[in-house]
Amino acid sequence: MIKARVTVTLKTGVLDPQGKAIEHALTGLGFGGVGAVRQGKVFDIEIDGADKAQAEADLKAMCDKLLANTVIENYSVAIT
Amino acid sequence: MIKARVTVTLKTGVLDPQGKAIEHALTGLGFGGVGAVRQGKVFDIEIDGADKAQAEADLKAMCDKLLANTVIENYSVAIT
Repeated sequence: MIKARVTVTLKTGVLDPQGKAIEHALTGLGFGGVGAVRQGKVFDIEIDGADKAQAEADLKAMCDKLLANTVIENYSVAIT
Repeated sequence: MIKARVTVTLKTGVLDPQGKAIEHALTGLGFGGVGAVRQGKVFDIEIDGADKAQAEADLKAMCDKLLANTVIENYSVAIT
């Protein structure tokens, strides 16, 4: 059993209204000095087997096909 | 300027229908051997200043107050 964490974040330059809203909310709550906030997604995925190279290749394929919109998002895969 | 990544994930035992849907979608796309999938959120936050200890304390307060629902979610803060 391989455990992996996939992190999907918006590419630089892509507008992130959700992150902007969080930024304003944090400032409104009294947290000074908060700069840019960007929100992304994280997926914790379990994969059967012990071949880490194969698992990493599979996870990248999953990102390309389903988990990330590669037009506007970057992804990173970390086997844990 | 301090850059930090806050990761918010559901606690063990909390139902995650979104993760379950992704799990089924991945299996349907032909990825065999996919076990549990859990979805979480990630926030990339910039904070003015250079005091990492203070920034970490502030980020934990932000999680408690806004970013995470600590009844059902765990969070982790990483200064990058």
